[in-house]
Amino acid sequence: MFEARLHQSSFLLKILEAIKELLNEATFQCTQNGIQLQAMDTSHVSLISLFLSQGGFDNYKCDRNISLGINLSSMLKIMKCAGSDDILTIKNHEEPDSITFIFESQSYDKVSNYQLRLMNLEHEHLDIPETDYACVMKMPSSEFARIFKMLLQFGETVEISCSKEGVKFSTSGDLGSANIKLAPNNTTDSDKAVFIEIQEPVVATFAIRYLTLFAKATPLALRVRHI
Amino acid sequence: MFEARLHQSSFLLKILEAIKELLNEATFQCTQNGIQLQAMDTSHVSLISLFLSQGGFDNYKCDRNISLGINLSSMLKIMKCAGSDDILTIKNHEEPDSITFIFESQSYDKVSNYQLRLMNLEHEHLDIPETDYACVMKMPSSEFARIFKMLLQFGETVEISCSKEGVKFSTSGDLGSANIKLAPNNTTDSDKAVFIEIQEPVVATFAIRYLTLFAKATPLALRVRHI
Amino acid sequence: MFEARLHQSSFLLKILEAIKELLNEATFQCTQNGIQLQAMDTSHVSLISLFLSQGGFDNYKCDRNISLGINLSSMLKIMKCAGSDDILTIKNHEEPDSITFIFESQSYDKVSNYQLRLMNLEHEHLDIPETDYACVMKMPSSEFARIFKMLLQFGETVEISCSKEGVKFSTSGDLGSANIKLAPNNTTDSDKAVFIEIQEPVVATFAIRYLTLFAKATPLALRVRHI
Repeated sequence: MFEARLHQSSFLLKILEAIKELLNEATFQCTQNGIQLQAMDTSHVSLISLFLSQGGFDNYKCDRNISLGINLSSMLKIMKCAGSDDILTIKNHEEPDSITFIFESQSYDKVSNYQLRLMNLEHEHLDIPETDYACVMKMPSSEFARIFKMLLQFGETVEISCSKEGVKFSTSGDLGSANIKLAPNNTTDSDKAVFIEIQEPVVATFAIRYLTLFAKATPLALRVRHI
Repeated sequence: MFEARLHQSSFLLKILEAIKELLNEATFQCTQNGIQLQAMDTSHVSLISLFLSQGGFDNYKCDRNISLGINLSSMLKIMKCAGSDDILTIKNHEEPDSITFIFESQSYDKVSNYQLRLMNLEHEHLDIPETDYACVMKMPSSEFARIFKMLLQFGETVEISCSKEGVKFSTSGDLGSANIKLAPNNTTDSDKAVFIEIQEPVVATFAIRYLTLFAKATPLALRVRHI
Repeated sequence: MFEARLHQSSFLLKILEAIKELLNEATFQCTQNGIQLQAMDTSHVSLISLFLSQGGFDNYKCDRNISLGINLSSMLKIMKCAGSDDILTIKNHEEPDSITFIFESQSYDKVSNYQLRLMNLEHEHLDIPETDYACVMKMPSSEFARIFKMLLQFGETVEISCSKEGVKFSTSGDLGSANIKLAPNNTTDSDKAVFIEIQEPVVATFAIRYLTLFAKATPLALRVRHI
């Protein structure tokens, strides 16, 4: 028996919006500690690892481990049915092939009940190695999203070079070239803080398309760490 | 000679927006009591009956009955030309084949004058029988619109079952199933009041598409009655 | 060496938005007095003449005349990369085949640097004759834009007739006909002032499509003069 209750159902909606372009379907692994999703994106380029701790729910019960194979665009359709003040309960009781989403309205005496068919997905466990990063950078996620949206107009890959002085994002294409330089600041205003911690300078090249997709998680967190 | 003057021209715009997906063209019957429109939708499934009483206009003159056959999307184009504070006059003087819409601006010394060609439409008078309803329900029109918008994602037909305890809207399809239950409340706040008056329990099935189209009249009224 | 600095970079963005549907590419001629653009639109129907005086920039240096052949949609892409509070510098130093746009953020320690390839465009100088106008009319540019947006629904050409009493815009088509009359007022409120100065009555016919395109300059100026 699995049951999780969440007052702020919009949070789950934002998560789905963030991953829907990377994954079509996914296995949510529910244990007594929380809900975990680990998957490679459809082109097997990037890794998505998500953990929703049981403590983040308003109520959480899971008396045996279960794997829920879910079509994400169907789940997104259901989550969009939630009113902004609805309380969400996700349930899987004795029904092996479906999962139930219940929305309780706080402004009406209204209960909406959506049953979603589960899918049989093959699931390989991914062992994600612990990594020591040569460079850790923190910046506002909105700025992160903005930079790659700009660069996507100019090229397909971005060279990110990071040193003590700052980080430089460079790309070029048919139009010409683009370089964006961002220096660390000592702002205590967390909306604007740019922070760089570095063992040695790093230069690496990435597909801008993927960074743009990762940036879709912007509404979820104020700050992003990378490299 | 027919002439009707309306200070709040946006009201007529909202009516046209509400019926334009049900009807392509319609006959407006003008009498000294007001303007009436009665028609079956283009697929002959639903019935539209609209009456604009002469008392709702700021000025109304109609000295003989006339029938105006109008292409609704053309009339909608004209109504969209009105400024938000324009005063509308609709006129049909001695011109058998056209009708004139005049918008007078209150912020400029500006008069806009649109002549629309009339159409020769066959018109059968519909005798709408008086009906006694086994169940009368009132609910906020925004909630009515919202429910069918949700259900349209899951299926094509909705089963509505109404009892003293409340009303249940159910549908199912490839994704799974959806049930929304709404109970009557005693709220005096008319924005949220749900009211059910019942002789005997009713269960009936409808095409969700039509209920969604009817819900386009939402901006016109705060509450909807049905069954 | 050419260098121009502009605190309010959004101004240049609005100019590009206004001309992008008339021109695909254009030659900007930079002299010590400012930047000039003169061109016929792609169908050789209308004439665009733009002059940005050096005094309008926060800093302006141009020690020899240069012609910059620019693809406008590429330049528009770059201008859209500017943050709302960014300071723009446009530079062309010793690079014959490219121009550099630099945006300095005022909220971050961030410098964005875009290099755009120049194009080799044939450029004929247009001698625009001085004209004495029989009728000069000033009206709010938002009203100008609004009128042609309405008329475009009804026809392809507009007859504009102007006399002491006011100006009349008329068109007709399949739907019927439309006439908009606007009288001069003595409003001192410049947002609403309509002013007509006339030597003799004027009647002229224009393609509405072009007037609609000209009206895209609406965000740039409060008032428009025409005929």
